[in-house]
Amino acid sequence: MTENSMHPVDLGSDAELANFENESAGDATEGMRRAKVDLPLLRLKRDEDRRLAAGHLWVFSNEVDTQATPLTAFTPGQSVEVRSAKDKFMGYGYVNPNSLISARLVSRNVDYGPSKSLFVHRLLIARSLRDRLYPEPFYRLVYGESDGLPGLVVDRYDDILVVQMATAGMEVQKAAIIEALVQVMKPRGILLKNDSSAREQEGLDSYVEVAVGEVPDSVRVSEAGLHFMAPLAHGQKTGWFYDQAANRAQFLGNTRGAKRILDVCGYLGPWGIRAAAGTQAQVTMIDSSAAAIEHATANAKANGVSFEGLKGDAFATMEALHEAREKFDLVILDPPAFVKRRKDSHKGAAAYRRLNQLAMQLMNRDSLLVTCSCSYHLEPQALEGAVQKGARHLGRFVQVLASGGQSADHPVHPAIPETRYLKAFLARVTPE
Amino acid sequence: MTENSMHPVDLGSDAELANFENESAGDATEGMRRAKVDLPLLRLKRDEDRRLAAGHLWVFSNEVDTQATPLTAFTPGQSVEVRSAKDKFMGYGYVNPNSLISARLVSRNVDYGPSKSLFVHRLLIARSLRDRLYPEPFYRLVYGESDGLPGLVVDRYDDILVVQMATAGMEVQKAAIIEALVQVMKPRGILLKNDSSAREQEGLDSYVEVAVGEVPDSVRVSEAGLHFMAPLAHGQKTGWFYDQAANRAQFLGNTRGAKRILDVCGYLGPWGIRAAAGTQAQVTMIDSSAAAIEHATANAKANGVSFEGLKGDAFATMEALHEAREKFDLVILDPPAFVKRRKDSHKGAAAYRRLNQLAMQLMNRDSLLVTCSCSYHLEPQALEGAVQKGARHLGRFVQVLASGGQSADHPVHPAIPETRYLKAFLARVTPE
Repeated sequence: MTENSMHPVDLGSDAELANFENESAGDATEGMRRAKVDLPLLRLKRDEDRRLAAGHLWVFSNEVDTQATPLTAFTPGQSVEVRSAKDKFMGYGYVNPNSLISARLVSRNVDYGPSKSLFVHRLLIARSLRDRLYPEPFYRLVYGESDGLPGLVVDRYDDILVVQMATAGMEVQKAAIIEALVQVMKPRGILLKNDSSAREQEGLDSYVEVAVGEVPDSVRVSEAGLHFMAPLAHGQKTGWFYDQAANRAQFLGNTRGAKRILDVCGYLGPWGIRAAAGTQAQVTMIDSSAAAIEHATANAKANGVSFEGLKGDAFATMEALHEAREKFDLVILDPPAFVKRRKDSHKGAAAYRRLNQLAMQLMNRDSLLVTCSCSYHLEPQALEGAVQKGARHLGRFVQVLASGGQSADHPVHPAIPETRYLKAFLARVTPE
Repeated sequence: MTENSMHPVDLGSDAELANFENESAGDATEGMRRAKVDLPLLRLKRDEDRRLAAGHLWVFSNEVDTQATPLTAFTPGQSVEVRSAKDKFMGYGYVNPNSLISARLVSRNVDYGPSKSLFVHRLLIARSLRDRLYPEPFYRLVYGESDGLPGLVVDRYDDILVVQMATAGMEVQKAAIIEALVQVMKPRGILLKNDSSAREQEGLDSYVEVAVGEVPDSVRVSEAGLHFMAPLAHGQKTGWFYDQAANRAQFLGNTRGAKRILDVCGYLGPWGIRAAAGTQAQVTMIDSSAAAIEHATANAKANGVSFEGLKGDAFATMEALHEAREKFDLVILDPPAFVKRRKDSHKGAAAYRRLNQLAMQLMNRDSLLVTCSCSYHLEPQALEGAVQKGARHLGRFVQVLASGGQSADHPVHPAIPETRYLKAFLARVTPE
């Protein structure tokens, strides 16, 4: 419903508003509860419990009362009980004295600390959501903080699970987590893909190992009735990018009719292949990895899609296509994160602009652009701004037709902005 | 693609970046162009051409060089040529000396000022987008600034068009616009629904009249294979809220299995009816308008949906349901705008929180919430924050599964933030 509705809505008086806000300032669900699990104490400084009270799960090093509870007294990943300066029970979590994020909460319930039974409980809740949303067993089963399991990611490929532990706290709980996964999911195999760069900041080593059963080199992924093969141990991240599946579904319903499709940084090919499947469209995919081109070519063939792979840097290859006067009806830009740290955001935004401007030079008169950024440090408006600057420079007119974030199996925790990283737009580009 | 990708991407050196930005600072498409249409001049103050140069279409009163071109010399809606302080041609537009927005650009092309032929051109471009996106002739054909027609809205119901003119500039062009619509669309009837509150600020009167042919009291709307009747002259706004159609499509695919559905401020019923169609689910709809309840009841019946309408204030009716211990599996909140002016944003955010908190009290243990705001002055994060505050107060845990904006027939102009107003979230709510 839009503005100026005929429906009168009573917003209440100012006095009622004040009452309501006061009432909610004291949280009815929390009090001076006594912990039922015996764990060492981590004490917060005065007023530094506010973020946790609002629902966030992180404690930063400058928020810890290190006089009362020195961080150096803890081993990386050790379980603790977190209390406010006023001795209010905040929850159980784990500590890492070597990380800027000193502690993460795992439970707000006095009865349950980090343990196999808590993990089983969390996994059952996570699974029930995915089973309700997904017709097939291909999804992210656990998305860290958003599923109440900070630092843990689990992707499901039918009966194979791929696990990432990004924190010392999760690494310490490894045995309990694997036992819980086996109990809840009964997988044929579990792969630990513990090679992300985030582990370095936690002082953890990098390794990939089969923890349970057998894990094939590649698995079959089913998405929207199409089938793809994805490499696991030797692939990127956990193998497949489930986070974009909802955007593919939402955007590509609007791109039918495109005859020539350019898929930039396409990896295993799902964007271009989904866009072209069942049509005569031709896909050109750019990727810097020869292995990715090889996998994508096979995936295109298996799905009956006409496909050409170009190995090379995205910018240089697009410039070469421009010089060759190639034109496309649909360009898809799904690059890796250009902004990895906040201080790179200016340079990163310029790179997004350059990429989008190159894309618009390769587009036919009235055509469609899918543009994405997985840079947490780049706001959605900044990506839109990068597109708009490129468009103005070229004398093009942009209309943003749809916007999206991560798929539902990567839920956003509304108190933890860090859980939202992906932004994607579908835009129409015409001459001005 | 997410962070830490294996793909190396060369962002270029700082020197290259500086070159690129300098290059783009001067816009290749603009210069000292001579206007080919003879219109009175509106001169901008120094440096006040930057918003227009970035792609926006509005000129505020404090940006006009009123010494050189006094606003009082123009009649409301008069066409003008806009030039910068340095005499750069910015475009043709129209003026309203009585509005805070003193002028809006209609064209950046020296050859075309506001005229029937320009409107025909814009309508053809607008129509080609909708014809490509929509399988049936039910959509917003023109969405103001985003379609290069500031102040004009046109909704299409098959062969009936409903038109809103929100500015004096569009009112002055009424005859040319109607001629252009007749030429491009060949409608059976055109209704001018010129009764929005925005017209008051432009000094325009409020009226509803049939401009062309015949217009029935109600029209049939087709959405996702379902059929609805929508009242036109006596309905809200232009009759139907096409802006939510994409969110209904995206969210309601994830809500199957809900047995009891509560649709708050449901108007003609599309949310609840689409959610329940083809299932045994029961819809309870709250609306303050008896006419809306009547229409929605008929729409539910026509689509075979079990339906109960409750006439009343949303807050009071939800409180009564809570007292009666009613519980639902899916609650949909699509209220009218609570924040109509920026200064109401605090009070408005509190109202959204109250509404969402009431909704969560009416939800079963593991159920779904659709929550929307069409308040331009409320940021998406503020709506999410309102939900989160209510959840924390009740000891509930919220996961945001999907987010959306307006449907593709309400495109966002990336240089005009005012063209984005709708935000909608699908969230799962469980006990903490």
